[in-house]
Formats: sequence, structure tokens, C-alpha cells
Amino acid sequence: MLIGNSEVFGTQGTIRAFNPTTGTELEPDFGAGNESDVDRACMLAQCAFDSYRETSLETRAQFLRLIAKEIRELGNALVDRASAETGLTRARIEGERGRTVGQLELFASIVSDGRWIGATFDSPLPERKPQPRPDLRLRKIALGPIAVFGASNFPLAFSVAGGDTASALAAGCPVVVKAHSSHLGTSELVGRAIQSAVAACGLHEGVFSLLLGQGKTIGQALVKHPAIRGVGFTGSRLGGTTLMRIAADRSEPIPVYAEMSSVNPILLFPRALQTNAERIAKGFVDSVTLGVGQFCTNPGVVLGMLGEGLERFKRAAAEEISSGHAAAMLSPTIHSAYQRGVERLKSAKDVIELAHVDSSECGCLGGPALFAVGARQLLADPDLAEEVFGPSSILVECETLREMRSVAECLPGQLTASLFIDGADVEMVRTMMPLLERKVGRIICNGYPTGVEVSFAMVHGGPFPATSDSRVTSVGATAIERFLRPVCYQNAPAALLPDSLQDANPLNIWRLRDGKLTQS
Amino acid sequence: MLIGNSEVFGTQGTIRAFNPTTGTELEPDFGAGNESDVDRACMLAQCAFDSYRETSLETRAQFLRLIAKEIRELGNALVDRASAETGLTRARIEGERGRTVGQLELFASIVSDGRWIGATFDSPLPERKPQPRPDLRLRKIALGPIAVFGASNFPLAFSVAGGDTASALAAGCPVVVKAHSSHLGTSELVGRAIQSAVAACGLHEGVFSLLLGQGKTIGQALVKHPAIRGVGFTGSRLGGTTLMRIAADRSEPIPVYAEMSSVNPILLFPRALQTNAERIAKGFVDSVTLGVGQFCTNPGVVLGMLGEGLERFKRAAAEEISSGHAAAMLSPTIHSAYQRGVERLKSAKDVIELAHVDSSECGCLGGPALFAVGARQLLADPDLAEEVFGPSSILVECETLREMRSVAECLPGQLTASLFIDGADVEMVRTMMPLLERKVGRIICNGYPTGVEVSFAMVHGGPFPATSDSRVTSVGATAIERFLRPVCYQNAPAALLPDSLQDANPLNIWRLRDGKLTQS
Repeated sequence: MLIGNSEVFGTQGTIRAFNPTTGTELEPDFGAGNESDVDRACMLAQCAFDSYRETSLETRAQFLRLIAKEIRELGNALVDRASAETGLTRARIEGERGRTVGQLELFASIVSDGRWIGATFDSPLPERKPQPRPDLRLRKIALGPIAVFGASNFPLAFSVAGGDTASALAAGCPVVVKAHSSHLGTSELVGRAIQSAVAACGLHEGVFSLLLGQGKTIGQALVKHPAIRGVGFTGSRLGGTTLMRIAADRSEPIPVYAEMSSVNPILLFPRALQTNAERIAKGFVDSVTLGVGQFCTNPGVVLGMLGEGLERFKRAAAEEISSGHAAAMLSPTIHSAYQRGVERLKSAKDVIELAHVDSSECGCLGGPALFAVGARQLLADPDLAEEVFGPSSILVECETLREMRSVAECLPGQLTASLFIDGADVEMVRTMMPLLERKVGRIICNGYPTGVEVSFAMVHGGPFPATSDSRVTSVGATAIERFLRPVCYQNAPAALLPDSLQDANPLNIWRLRDGKLTQS
Repeated sequence: MLIGNSEVFGTQGTIRAFNPTTGTELEPDFGAGNESDVDRACMLAQCAFDSYRETSLETRAQFLRLIAKEIRELGNALVDRASAETGLTRARIEGERGRTVGQLELFASIVSDGRWIGATFDSPLPERKPQPRPDLRLRKIALGPIAVFGASNFPLAFSVAGGDTASALAAGCPVVVKAHSSHLGTSELVGRAIQSAVAACGLHEGVFSLLLGQGKTIGQALVKHPAIRGVGFTGSRLGGTTLMRIAADRSEPIPVYAEMSSVNPILLFPRALQTNAERIAKGFVDSVTLGVGQFCTNPGVVLGMLGEGLERFKRAAAEEISSGHAAAMLSPTIHSAYQRGVERLKSAKDVIELAHVDSSECGCLGGPALFAVGARQLLADPDLAEEVFGPSSILVECETLREMRSVAECLPGQLTASLFIDGADVEMVRTMMPLLERKVGRIICNGYPTGVEVSFAMVHGGPFPATSDSRVTSVGATAIERFLRPVCYQNAPAALLPDSLQDANPLNIWRLRDGKLTQS
């Protein structure tokens, strides 16, 4: 573990990472931590908070850029280890590394831009009757130390230096990460990169710590710790809702940003199918099987209207799935949950198996699968649309637009919905937009949900149970807003005001003055 | 009750309002509602949601302005009834009415301004390798139907058409209000004003409903109802935390914005006391006794450093308190809680009574009270600083700045902290600013916490238990953000995009394009 600037070998037994491709454990031993390790990391984070949150925009941006640089400099050692621990290809890990350092650099530029401060001024009105209006100035400050839980499916981009950590550090929050047990070596490498950037920038050592051990002890103790003011999590619905419960039960409840489960429905409209059934099917199967289906944005449900176009789609998709191959999943746990999910659909009365590459006998290998069910059957048993984490999807065959609408309405909150439309379909879809906007965080036209851009307009979020909090995104520029809170200064002398609220605008940031945006 | 465009006389028994000044019940009888009334109001709100949230900015702004106009036109009938039901003076009610209509008008202008939509664009990069970047557009939409709980202490500004309702309606959320039982007649009058504005603007009747009855049945059923997507509440800590618990226990948890309890510490620094002890004391007592102390921003704790200045402050404040008079409190419940709180301090071992206008024998009258305690005693028993809702305050005498800092650190989250400073005090305060920023939502220099401006830079919020959620404010322009969530549109054709995201910017609003703010 990395607690502040120390290395700590935990005393709660040893754990090792596992190579799902070869089915072997990986050296070395890692020592699992206990509650006093959690306490030490959190107390250090608390000590670091007041100084870290007031670092200059420039210092903080440099710090984020330096983390990116240190990660890049880990070179092949990082790619090798992450690939061994996850079974993901080197190319995929390299792509994810690019995304991770790009994300850190984006947040560096967001920090410098300063719009996140939300600096706002109400000019005093000393002559106003019956009461004068005081001088009021608002800025946002960091929420406090944040606990981040790394996800197994993105060992870099949603882990130790992933989006939650990057946006929390950008906001001015110290971060305590609980490493995911499935990529301990990757976590250590990235953790050391951050630790070294903390030291190089002369920041308080408590700005970052990395813990490892059992979720039940370390993870829960972390969320319960009084110094922790917020939680970022990506993982299972059970894991996320457990943390939500713990956070709500604290004597002082704290926000939990949990990104959990989503089946990312794809809606196929008649005209688009007519023109493009085979091409859509090909792209769909690519999206279902990408990364062995282990994406939060994996399309697990497809809705289509019965007809010749849908038949062509079915045929093409089934062929494409059948010609695919099984591949190593992230961990034995994920693999066995996938096998159970596929078996559940296979044995469901009204579900038809369109294609399945069976791999049940082969270690951690998960084979792609495609099922079909009638809309009426699904409406009678909505659990058939529950997430099967992996390369499996179910086609829901609807007789009418009305039925398609009913199925969409019965799905719970989702990260995304993808619409395949052409020509006259648009009018049909128009009436469904309000429903889709209520259900999901991102609406995609003629594209697939996998592939989440790290940019300003991205929303990687959505109504429960896709996430714990539909008001925010965990990917993209506005992810920083999760870790901020406003403070107002009334009639404060300049000596007590932060730079962002000084009259002269020394940071040269956008500010709101009496309701008008201005940069002067 | 007003459920959509109907009037409903509830069947769960009758309740009446009470005049705390005369100690008599007020005509007429109101019929308390049951769970099916709740269900009907919530289902109507759900039906109204999709159309209401897409009303044009102009329509929605007009609607808010019309509510303000209808309230103003209630004239003396409203002032008479509110004054009778609360014991507050007509002047106070008139002031509060001004604030309430001003608030509605502020939100009308905020709606028109359109910055709340947060319209954001990432331009497509079709040539980017390895993957092209899609066209991404983000806007914020309303969260869904909101439950609002009126507060007893502001029968207009924090009640049926108060800040929560105004900001939720501005965001595009239908609102279901649970009227506070202590001002039923006022609630009905204001509710009718809103109902009539809904009809005049041709909106769906479900945009607004007003329920009344027992908190335990009506209130809890409202927060549990699946159509409700968020809660606004101002009241006691018990009430607020109960709603937080219910909301977290739903199968789909929802956010609760509860503004609960705060003692709003005042910190007196040596130089300011030396120059101004008596003037500060006079203003302090005015703030403690304003509205019979029944403000969330009432200053219930004062910290000062021992010395000649503090002695002068004590003397002056005690004299001022003693020369005050008891006045009718809002309700028998609030009055008896106040009496219990004052008795608790009177009988506490280490607490000295500096002044108290005793009124225990006189109906609902609450008399002002001032106590003193040593910092060490308070640190040993922090409950002595717990909120006593009413015109009571406790002075904590500190020997050193360090002790003052310890007391401030041991206080829980607060809405405000007020600092009295002069000359050299500023340097002393500077070192305390990080602590204060962590503890409170608004830091006031040389002023008192009562008097909350409705403006752009106001923060009426703060860490738990002052509120349930320190990331937001319940007063001021940014209160609208509580009721919004982002939705992203990827590669959507213009026909499926809302006006706010059309290329030509037909609403003429500020938007973010590739990270740069622009109005073109």
C-alpha cells in the first residue's frame, strides 16, 4: 500500500493478482491492509485538504500533467502487467493508457480555465431600502477527501488514476483509492506514479494514498471514515448500493457517485433496418463483443419491430456471433457470473437462443451469445432484460411502435440508448424522445454505445440503477462538479478573499457579475 | 387540497389552523388527505412532466411571473390570514410577501437567461484516428416531479410558493406541496394563486398540487411515491433526517434537499470588541430576537475572547436582552420546544444565565434569553451548543485564539458564520478561514446572519446537519441546479434536438463550444 509518502505492507494476510488467460497466480505477494491503515490514510488526507485545495490553478494543473507524464513513462512495464492481470490485449491497454493520460491532461486544462470555480458577484446596494444589499461573492471549493474504488474492467481509465481520481484531484480533493484486487500490480505502478508526482510538486503527502485488501473491511471502513466527504465507485449494482447504504447510515451522510449497471438498449427502426440491416448487425456484434463485452456501455438489449428488416438483422447478427470466439474474461468471478447469466437465459421458457459460442469448459473464457424474446414475454418478466455482464445480448421483438415504447418504459434507468434511424423513422422517434430523455444519460443516433468520449459534452451517467445519481457524469469535463460545494463571502475585506473573488480578476477567469457573464 | 385543477376535501378527519397570539383555533375546517390523494397528485405530476419541462423559456417565465402577480393580488386577505396563523406581524408578512414575489420574478429572469441549460457542444472530428469523434451536445433537463414541504417559520417565502417551489418550477419540474399544518389558510390562498396561473397559462393541471394532512401519512407517502424524483424540505433536523432515510430506502433512491438546523456562530475578535462592543451587542440582540428568533439563520452561539471588550459586550447584550419582551411563537409545539431548550441551559452545571425574560406561564410567548459558558466546558459537552429554536443564544468565552478555533472546529456544519473584525483582527481571522470554509456555507464580515439575500451569489446551505447536501443552496439563483440533470445527444439529427442545442442558437443563450463560452 502507499499511505502518504510511505510504503506499507499490510498485515491482514497476503493476496495475489491472477492471470485469467493462463489461469495462474501472479507474483508478488501483496499485504492486505486493516482499519488502522484506512485511518492513517484518511487522517493524512484530512491534513492535506486545506493546503491542497488552495494550491494555485497552475500548481494543480502541473500536478495533473505530471501524473500523466509519470504514467506514460511507466512504458511497457505497465502495459505488460495490466495485460497479464486482466487478459485484455496490449493494444487495448495501450489505448486505455492514452485515454487515461488524456483525461488527466483535460482536467489540467479545466483547472486552469477556472470556470469550475463558479465565481459570482452581487454588487452591494448601500442605498437600497428598507435594507442595503451587502457585497456577496460566491466561489466553489473542494468537498473534502474522496474515496475512490477502482473498477476491474478498466484497469487504468476507471481505476487508480482514472476519471474519479482525476476529477477529484482537479477539484482540490485529496484522494484515497481502494485498489481493485484483480489488478494489484497495475494499481501499485500507477499509485507510485501519483505518489512521485505529489512529492515532485511539493504537495502534502496526504493528497494521495492507495489501499488494498478486502472490500468488506477496507472498503467499508473507508466509506465510514469521518474524514471522507464523498465516494466515487464503478462496479456492480450490489457493490454500489452497499456503499450507498453505508454512506447514508453515517452520522454525517456523504454523497456516493456509483456507476453500476446498464443494458444500454439499442432501438432499431424499420426504415434503417430496411436499408442497412446487415451493416447494423455487424457493428452491433462488434460492440457486444468488444473487450469480451466487459463495458458498462455494452448493448445488452436490442428492441426491433417485427418485419423483413428485423429478420435480416437477426440472421446477420446470429451468423456474426456464431463466427466469433470465446475470450478470457477479467476474472474467475466475472466469468462464472457470465456463465450463470447465459444459462439463465438459455433455460428461460420464452427465450430463443439465436447463437452462442459455448466455452463453459474452458477456464475463464466467455463466448458470445445472442438471444431473442417477444415483447409480451419480456413485459411479463422484465428480469429477462437484466444485465448479463459480458458478450451477451437479447433481442426483443415488438409488433408495434406502441409495444416498443412499452418495453422501453419498463426498462430501468440506463447510461445510454442507441437509435438506428433513417428517413421517415425520425418522425417515429421524435415521439419517443421524452421517454428516452427520462430513462438515459446519453442518446446515440446511428452509433453504438461502447466508446465513451472524454470531452465537454459527454454524459456517462443516468437514472438509477445505471448510477446512484443522475445529476452528474463520471466521464467528461463536468465530472469535476461532483466534488465541489459553494461558499459565499458577505462583505469580506479583500485580505480575506481568495484570488478568484478579488475585484481585479487576477486569475483572468469567467465570472458572473450581477447576473452577467464577464471575463473583465 | 388542490389536486391538479380540482378541489378535494380530505376524508382523514379535519384539522384547523391556530392563532398563537390569541390561543384560539381558526376557521374553517380543512380535510386531511390520505394516500390515494397523494397518489392522484403524483400521477398527475408525472403526466404533466414531459410537456411542462419542454415549455418554451418564455412560457415558463410568464407562468412564474403570473404566480407572483396572483399572490400580490391576494392583497390584505393573505396578509391577515398569514399574520393570524403565525403570530408574525403584518409588516413582517408584507416584507416576506415582497421577498416571495421577488423570488418568483428572479427565477423568471433566470429561466429566460437560459444559462441553467448548460448547453455544451463538442464538434465532430470525422478524421480523427483511430476513431472519429462524434458530434456531442449536452443540455440539462428537469429531474422530474418534486415534493416540497412548507416550513412553519416562513409561511410565504419557504412555503407553498417559496424558494423550493419557485426553483423547481423554473427547472421544469411539476411540484406537489405538502402544506405545513400551522398555516393551512395561507397555504390554500397561495395554492389557489398557483392553480389559477397554471390554468391561465394553459399548462397541464398536474404541474401543481397542494396536499394537507399528517406528516406521517401524507408526507411519507409523498416521498415514497415512485413518480417523485426529488424532495425540498425546510424544517427540523428530525423531520429532515426522516425524509432522507425514506428517500434512501426507496427501491430507486432520490435526492433530498433538507435545510435543517444551524446555530450560526458569531465570532467576536478583540480589536472589533474594543472599538465597538456596545454597537455589536445591540445588533446581535436584534438579530437573536428578530421574528422571535425563529429563523434558520438565528445566531445561537457567540464565541469571544476573554478581555475587557468581551465584558462590555456581555454587559450590553444582557441589558438589551433584559429590556426585550416575550412574543408569540409560531405554534404551541415550537413554543414548548423552546421552553425546554431554555430550561436545559438554565439547569446545565457550567452555564451561567446572563439574562432571560421569563414567559413560561403565558401561552405561546417566548422570552429572549442569553447564557454564557467557558470554552473548556463547551468542549467537554458540545451539546450545550445545540440549536434552541427561538430567541436564545449562548456566549462561549475563550481564553485564546487556539481555544476559539477548537470550539469552532467542534461545532457541526452550519449555514453561516459571522466575524466581527477590525484592523489587526483580519490577520488573526485569515488563519481561521480554511476552517470556516469547511464548516459553513456563508461567511459574513461585520454583519449578522439573519437576512438572506435572494440573489446570484447567495449560499443558503452548508455541511450536515445544517443541510442534507452541502453541494447546493436553497436560496438564490443557483437553487435551480438542484432540480436538473444532464442529457447528452450523440450524432442526433437537427429534427431530434431541442432548441437549446440547435446550431443557430435560436434561444440566444450562452453555450460552451469545444470548451469556450460563446453566445453566437
